[in-house]
Amino acid sequence: MRVSTLSIGDELVSGRVIDTNVATIAQGLMSLGLQLQRHIIVGDREPDIMEALQELSRTSDAVIVTGGLGPTADDITAHAAARTTGRRLVVNEEAKQHVRTMSSHLPSLVVCPLNDKQTLIPTKTTLIPNPTGTACGFHLMYNSCFLFFLPGVPSEMQEMLQQSVFPFISERIPARRTILTSHVNIFGPCEAEVDEMLGGIANPGHGLRLGICVTYPWIRVTLQSEADTESAAQGQLQQARAEVVERLDQYIFSEGELTIDESVADLFVRCGLSLSLAESCTGGMIAERITSIAGSSRYFQEAGITYSNSSKHRQLAVDAEMLQTNGAVSSEVASAMAKGIRTATGSALGLAVTGIAGPDGGSDDKPVGTVFISLAAPDGCWTKRFQFNGTRHEIRVITTWTAIDWLRRYLLAHLPDLTTRK
Amino acid sequence: MRVSTLSIGDELVSGRVIDTNVATIAQGLMSLGLQLQRHIIVGDREPDIMEALQELSRTSDAVIVTGGLGPTADDITAHAAARTTGRRLVVNEEAKQHVRTMSSHLPSLVVCPLNDKQTLIPTKTTLIPNPTGTACGFHLMYNSCFLFFLPGVPSEMQEMLQQSVFPFISERIPARRTILTSHVNIFGPCEAEVDEMLGGIANPGHGLRLGICVTYPWIRVTLQSEADTESAAQGQLQQARAEVVERLDQYIFSEGELTIDESVADLFVRCGLSLSLAESCTGGMIAERITSIAGSSRYFQEAGITYSNSSKHRQLAVDAEMLQTNGAVSSEVASAMAKGIRTATGSALGLAVTGIAGPDGGSDDKPVGTVFISLAAPDGCWTKRFQFNGTRHEIRVITTWTAIDWLRRYLLAHLPDLTTRK
Repeated sequence: MRVSTLSIGDELVSGRVIDTNVATIAQGLMSLGLQLQRHIIVGDREPDIMEALQELSRTSDAVIVTGGLGPTADDITAHAAARTTGRRLVVNEEAKQHVRTMSSHLPSLVVCPLNDKQTLIPTKTTLIPNPTGTACGFHLMYNSCFLFFLPGVPSEMQEMLQQSVFPFISERIPARRTILTSHVNIFGPCEAEVDEMLGGIANPGHGLRLGICVTYPWIRVTLQSEADTESAAQGQLQQARAEVVERLDQYIFSEGELTIDESVADLFVRCGLSLSLAESCTGGMIAERITSIAGSSRYFQEAGITYSNSSKHRQLAVDAEMLQTNGAVSSEVASAMAKGIRTATGSALGLAVTGIAGPDGGSDDKPVGTVFISLAAPDGCWTKRFQFNGTRHEIRVITTWTAIDWLRRYLLAHLPDLTTRK
Repeated sequence: MRVSTLSIGDELVSGRVIDTNVATIAQGLMSLGLQLQRHIIVGDREPDIMEALQELSRTSDAVIVTGGLGPTADDITAHAAARTTGRRLVVNEEAKQHVRTMSSHLPSLVVCPLNDKQTLIPTKTTLIPNPTGTACGFHLMYNSCFLFFLPGVPSEMQEMLQQSVFPFISERIPARRTILTSHVNIFGPCEAEVDEMLGGIANPGHGLRLGICVTYPWIRVTLQSEADTESAAQGQLQQARAEVVERLDQYIFSEGELTIDESVADLFVRCGLSLSLAESCTGGMIAERITSIAGSSRYFQEAGITYSNSSKHRQLAVDAEMLQTNGAVSSEVASAMAKGIRTATGSALGLAVTGIAGPDGGSDDKPVGTVFISLAAPDGCWTKRFQFNGTRHEIRVITTWTAIDWLRRYLLAHLPDLTTRK
């Protein structure tokens, strides 16, 4: 089954908005064992939309179209769909009822005036329910191809995809070879180093593909195994995965869809250790990442975002003379911050970062990108100097990643030994 | 001049990575007065790449291709380009020298082993220098169309675009009508409300287009004015802009490319007021946003990320009995937090948020999404209860936006009157 996608919107061809829907759809297709054939983006111009619909419907078995179903004048997808497929655009009673119901149910922040435009749907189509918004989707058959039309709002699109479109497609996939994938996520080495470490594992002739994908600052290694039977695909995949895990070892922070933040959260729960943070150059980015995980209040106590020198003294009891002598960006101050927040809060772990994110503030001695990370723990205090490169944002991001990876490595080494506990 | 784009990579059609390059290219084209005609994404499969190159080169005057120029085995763009256009793939001495130079110059974090693959370039092409990476780009003429090949790494692509591709395209744009655009960025009302407020302003027949683009949780209003002369386009645009600004008024946080964070930073500098934060449910997200702006140390002093009750007491001197009686998520605690951080730090402004980001922790009284924001200032303390909707992440984001918008509104009302100062 060949599946393609079409995203419609001037905001996409003007570069105003980044099209994230294609990634969502592509991931979902992968889980059905399908690979996206082609993705096209066009603006809100009817001739362009019609041409793309014609072309994709001729070369694909299914096309998932997103965008242009909203209430405003530049939303013309339903009209273009009707014209392309030779249908009329009429008021759909079911859609009308839906718009009315949703408008009265939606919370006040997103209530929009009832708009008749969203009730106009091409004839001879099936509606696709939208549980969270006013815009109904619809699907129809044209050129022996299923055309699905969904709103462009990512959250609405995603729900309709899972509830309606994917089940519909899944039922129609012909008997096929089994494709299984496995992901290993790593932080540390660069793309070419990973490529070298994993040399010889891929075997495309036997249906074993290996992909290395850089998602700054981490890397995802994907294994895809294709075989006639599930057990053959599974066997080949497991063997390759074990080899990848052995070679990448310490750099692996998770497998599958687990983020490093979720992985570290899981380690905190298993270790039963508490955490407090003292952040300077990252300005709250580490705390934000730690608290992005539901349930983080079980181990995260507090953070001091100590931007000014006086706050480093007030919150963390960093000695004013030390700040004067060594400078706020120094090994001494970093470890004083980590110990300071640990003592003040009584947390098991105190993690601190101080550095120069730029673009100003650098010197010959300590250029922009100089960062000190310090971890104070019951069994010692470790401090290290790093030299990162990039923009202010990139330096803050890589610092945050490195700090979180430090926590991961510490916790991993201090996991309670479950075998001896039995 | 019709310009299209092609992004190549399995990581894009598998949904692993979101294609941001198209937005970068499209924005640049807009500034040249060109609108992206079509964007296609295909995976790392030679037949798909060749078919897309054939098709786009027939229907466009220029195609900008990104991705697949890296050192690993799945990078096959140069090979596909050579085959599509009937050229040979040979070692390019200039590219070889470039890879060698870059490999020795790049900072240690990104040094990758020298790879001969990146020195193979199709014959009869012009190299496009890459000042920041090893992969050279190149451009060639095929089907009377300029094909530009750039690496997919966003930072490298962007620099090569600005330094080489756009100047090249710009020189070849035939005499054209003038297109000018103007952006107004707002926070508060929903899409349909904005559409209603701006009714009657657009006049497509006279070359005045209006776009409303939702980038959760804010909205960008774009005006595009097209006319025979620059002055006519300018006049029409200015008149429409003034009308939009009058109608949207208080909701406007910036114009053009300025973010709300930059806008608030500018207001802080102009007002000369200092800020400290006390965050609970947002866990550092507000501080991270404030400190993302270079120079924020001029007005930002510190933040207490007071997740636990004991930290609210320790850092902000919130009364333990008040926490017990009213709960940590309450109007009383919010204002005590704002006043507490203001007093402890001596900042002019103290901003605090406390709420239930979910998914757990809600009750009938205070369901998930209940948030209190409080601002303590020299002239008073304001506290308000909000009920937000969405996921944990969405609630944290909308809380952060609302808090930053509060700062914007307060600072705007307290700008020193420059006219009386003269």
